[in-house]
Amino acid sequence: MSSICLAQINPFLGDCTANAKMILAALKKAKVSGAKLVVFPELCIIGYPPKDLLQDDFFIEQNRKALERILPFTKGMAAVIGFVDKKYGNIYNAAAVVSDGKIVGVQHKTHLPNYGVFDEKRYFAEAQSWRIFSLAGERVAITICEDIWVEPSPLAVLAKQGATLCVNLSASPFEKEKMTQRKNILINHARKFHLPLVYVNMVGGQDDLVFDGRSCVVNAEGKVIAQARAFSEDLLMADLQSQPVCLMENAIQDMHDALVLALRDYVHKNGFSSVVVGVSGGIDSAVTASLAVEALGKKNVVGVFMPSSFTSGQSAADAKVLASNLGIPLRVISIQQMYNEYKKLLRIKEPHTALENIQARIRGNILMAFSNAEGHLVVTTGNKSEIACGYCTLYGDTAGGFALLSDVYKTSVYKLAAYINRLRQLIPSSIIAREPTAELRHNQKDTDSLPPYDVLDRILHALFEEGKSQAETVALGFPKAVVSKVADAVRRSEYKRHQLPPGPKVSSKAFGSGRRFPITNGDIEKLFSVF
Amino acid sequence: MSSICLAQINPFLGDCTANAKMILAALKKAKVSGAKLVVFPELCIIGYPPKDLLQDDFFIEQNRKALERILPFTKGMAAVIGFVDKKYGNIYNAAAVVSDGKIVGVQHKTHLPNYGVFDEKRYFAEAQSWRIFSLAGERVAITICEDIWVEPSPLAVLAKQGATLCVNLSASPFEKEKMTQRKNILINHARKFHLPLVYVNMVGGQDDLVFDGRSCVVNAEGKVIAQARAFSEDLLMADLQSQPVCLMENAIQDMHDALVLALRDYVHKNGFSSVVVGVSGGIDSAVTASLAVEALGKKNVVGVFMPSSFTSGQSAADAKVLASNLGIPLRVISIQQMYNEYKKLLRIKEPHTALENIQARIRGNILMAFSNAEGHLVVTTGNKSEIACGYCTLYGDTAGGFALLSDVYKTSVYKLAAYINRLRQLIPSSIIAREPTAELRHNQKDTDSLPPYDVLDRILHALFEEGKSQAETVALGFPKAVVSKVADAVRRSEYKRHQLPPGPKVSSKAFGSGRRFPITNGDIEKLFSVF
Repeated sequence: MSSICLAQINPFLGDCTANAKMILAALKKAKVSGAKLVVFPELCIIGYPPKDLLQDDFFIEQNRKALERILPFTKGMAAVIGFVDKKYGNIYNAAAVVSDGKIVGVQHKTHLPNYGVFDEKRYFAEAQSWRIFSLAGERVAITICEDIWVEPSPLAVLAKQGATLCVNLSASPFEKEKMTQRKNILINHARKFHLPLVYVNMVGGQDDLVFDGRSCVVNAEGKVIAQARAFSEDLLMADLQSQPVCLMENAIQDMHDALVLALRDYVHKNGFSSVVVGVSGGIDSAVTASLAVEALGKKNVVGVFMPSSFTSGQSAADAKVLASNLGIPLRVISIQQMYNEYKKLLRIKEPHTALENIQARIRGNILMAFSNAEGHLVVTTGNKSEIACGYCTLYGDTAGGFALLSDVYKTSVYKLAAYINRLRQLIPSSIIAREPTAELRHNQKDTDSLPPYDVLDRILHALFEEGKSQAETVALGFPKAVVSKVADAVRRSEYKRHQLPPGPKVSSKAFGSGRRFPITNGDIEKLFSVF
Repeated sequence: MSSICLAQINPFLGDCTANAKMILAALKKAKVSGAKLVVFPELCIIGYPPKDLLQDDFFIEQNRKALERILPFTKGMAAVIGFVDKKYGNIYNAAAVVSDGKIVGVQHKTHLPNYGVFDEKRYFAEAQSWRIFSLAGERVAITICEDIWVEPSPLAVLAKQGATLCVNLSASPFEKEKMTQRKNILINHARKFHLPLVYVNMVGGQDDLVFDGRSCVVNAEGKVIAQARAFSEDLLMADLQSQPVCLMENAIQDMHDALVLALRDYVHKNGFSSVVVGVSGGIDSAVTASLAVEALGKKNVVGVFMPSSFTSGQSAADAKVLASNLGIPLRVISIQQMYNEYKKLLRIKEPHTALENIQARIRGNILMAFSNAEGHLVVTTGNKSEIACGYCTLYGDTAGGFALLSDVYKTSVYKLAAYINRLRQLIPSSIIAREPTAELRHNQKDTDSLPPYDVLDRILHALFEEGKSQAETVALGFPKAVVSKVADAVRRSEYKRHQLPPGPKVSSKAFGSGRRFPITNGDIEKLFSVF
C-alpha cells in the first residue's frame, strides 16, 4: 500500500464538536497528501479519559453525531476513528471503520485496562467478536491500545485469518521510559505475527495525564520505519516499504517536554491564557517559572516575590535575576506586615508551625487574589519529594490550579534546571548552588525536617516506583530509622495530597489518579506482639 | 440451630492488629452468650475499602497473620470472617470458614462491584468455585455482599446442593433509603431460594463512606426476624425460629445518625479528639456545630466567630446564643483589620470577588492556625448545593479536614436543624428563619448568585441522584435558562471539588469517590451548528 496517514491529534476532552473539526482538518490534509488510509487515536472523538462523562447518554449521543458528520469527508479514502459505540445497552471503547463516506464496520476493544490510572471496566463492555477489514488494498486487523499489551492478543486470531496489516489506536500516557517499553511491545508483536503495525497515539495534556504521541510504523521484521513527533501534533505520512529509522530517548528532555505540554494544555483547555507563579528565589519556583515561559510565552507569565523578615537578600537578588532572565514582570509584595497582624491576632509566639504555615498561607492568598483579580491560573511549585513527605502547607504553597512539579523529585528538579540552562542560561547558578530552605523561620534548612534529598529521593523511588516494602528498601542500604520515618511521613500526609491540585504524571507512580490510598489508615508496619 | 451471633463490628481500616483484637473480643462475648456460629462483616480484618493498600504484599501478609492469631479463639464454635485471600498470584475478597480452631474452608467473592464508589475489579479476582460448609448443624452457603445483589446469584447453585442457611458478609455503605432497598433484596433472595439468610454488615465511618450496620436475619418465608442496631456496633444473638420484627426507616434521623458516626470515626480514627468550627451565625455552621457536639461531646468542640464589617449584629447574636445552647466556647476574632491590610496590599477596590474570597481565606487561615496550634481538626460547613455550584471559596470556607455537610442539600440542612431541635432546642429560630447570606459584601444574599434553594436543590437532585439530562430536567417544569446555568456552574466548578476535603456520602450520588469527572472538560450541551 502506498500511503497511510498517522493522524496524531490533540483532542479536547468532552468537546466532540471541536474534536470532529480537528479530525476533518486532518482528513483534508491527508487527502491532499495522497493518503489512502488515515488512522486516528483511541477515543479521539471524545478525548481520554472521559471518566463519568461516559455515564451521560447525551454525551454518548454527541459523540455518535460527531462521527456521522465526519463521514462525508472520507470520500475516496478510508479512516479508522476512535469513538464510543453504544449497543445492546452497553458501551464500548471502539474504532469506527470508515470507507468512502460510510461506516463499514466497528471493532470493539478487547482488553480493558483497570489498573493504575485506568478504570475502563467501570464503563465499557469487552469485544465479543473480531474481524478483518478490507481497506485501501490491505486486510486490516484493528486493535485498541491495551489489546496489544496483554495476552491473548486479538491478533492471534486475526493473523490466522489472513491479516496483512495491524493498526492500533492508542491513548497511552507518557511516563519515564515509556517509549522504549512501548517500542518493545510493538516490535515483539510485529515479529510474532509477522505483520506490519501502524500505531497511532494521542498527544496532549488532560489533567494529570500527558500523552506523548510518538505514533509509529513498525514493519513485519520488527523495525521502526517511521515515527511521528513527540509531545506535539503531527500528521505522519508513511509507507510500509520505508527504511528503518533510528530513535533516541532522553529522559530529562522528555520530562521537560511533557511538563511544558501538560501545562500549556491545562491552561488553554481550561480557558486561561496566563499564569502566576510565586517566585521565592529557590530552585522549584525557578524551574516552574522557566517551564511556564516555555509553555505559554513570557508575556503570559507573572512572577510574584513575597518576602518576609526570614527571606534572605540572596533570595531577593536571585528572584530578580531570574525574572529578568526570563523577561517576566516580578511583583514584590512583602508579607511582613500581614504576618505581624496574624501574630497579634492569634497570640502565638515564634517559633511555631502554626506561624510557619501562616506565612505560606498569606502567600497563597496573595497569589489567589491575583488569580481572582487578573485571571491568571496559579501554578504551584512543590516537588514530589516534598509532597510525598507532606513537607508543604495546605492552602499555602499548595494553593493553585496546577501542581507542575508534583511528580518530579527534588533531585530531578536540579536535572531539569541544568537541562533548561543548557538550552538557554536562565536560572542563576546561585539558585542551583544554595542549600534548599523554606525560609519560614531563621536559619531553616529542608534537612532540619527531611533526610538529604539524594537519600530521600532514592528511598521514595524504591517505595513508589519500585513498589518495594520498607524491609526491601532498608536492604538497599538505607538506615531502618530513616526509611521508617519517610514511610510514616508519606502515610500521615495522605490528607494533604487529597486536597492538592492535579499535576502531570511523568513517572510510573505519581500522586494522582493512579495512586489511591485511604486517608484514614491504621496501616503501620508494627510488630505483632499484642496477643 | 440455636444461636447465631451477628458480629457487627467497626474495623479500623489498615490496622489488622486492632481489628483482630476487636474480633477476639466479639468471639469471647459470643461464646459466653452460647453462640454456635459467629458471622463477621466483609473484609473485617482489614476494613473497607482498603484501596491500593491491597497492592502491598506486607499488608496482605499482616491480614493473614491476624487471621491465624484469631483461630485459637474459635475453639468449640464456628465463625465466618472476612479477609483477603492470596492464591495463585491473585488476591480474593474472601470469607474464612473457621471451626473449632481451624480454617475449614475459604469462600471467595463472586461478583466484584466496579461502579459508584467501588473498584473491586482493580484488585480482586473472582470466585471460581462454590461449596457448602457444615457448620453448627447447618449446611451453610456463604456469599459476600454484591453476590446477592446481582444475577446469577451463587445461591442458585448452592441451594440445589442442599444449603439450609445462607450467610452474607457485607460492607455496604449507607445512603438514603438503602435499608429498604437492602431489605427487599434479602427478602426476595430468601423467598426465591427458600433459605434463611444471615446478613452481617459493617458499621463505622471510613473517609467518605459510612457503614450503617443493621445486620439482620431473614427467615425462609422472607420475614425479618432480627435486626442489629443502626450506626452503632452490635453483637446480635439470633435464632432462626424467632418471630418477625417490624422495622422503620426515618430519612432525616438516618442522615443525622450517619453524619454523627462519620464525623466521630473520621476524627478519632485519624488521631484527633476535638474539632474547631467556624460559626457564622448561619444555618450551615449551626447544624455542623450541633452535629459535632453530638459526635464528640461539647468539651471537644470549639466555635470561632470571625466577624467583619459586613457581619450583621443578628449574626453575632445568633452565634453567641447557639454556642451557649451547645455549651461550647465561642472565640470571637474580628477579621476586619486583616482584611483592611489585604485591601491596601492588593490595591483592589470593593466590590470585587477577589476581596470576597480574601475574607473567606482569612477565616480559613485562622481556623487552620487553631488546628495547628491546638490540635483540633477543622470541620468545614459547606453544603451540597453550594459545593455543586462552586458557591464556595477554595482555601477559604472549604479549608479543613472533613466536609461534614458536603452531601446534604441546603433544604436538607434545614430539615436536619428541625430534627436536631426536636431532640433538644439548640439552634435559635432566628438562624432558621433568616435569609441565607455569605456576608462577604453589603446586603449580599445567596439568591444574588443562585436560584432559590428549593428550586436549586430539586434541579440538582434531578441532575445527580436521578441522572436526568438537562432536557429531562427542564421537562420537570424548570426554566431552561436556570437548568442550563446550574449545569454549567457544576461543570465549571469541578476544579474546586477536586481540592475539597472528604465528607460523608449520605445520598445515592455524592461528590466523592463515587463521582469521577475530569476537570478539563469541553462538554457543553451546545447545538451542533458548526459544520
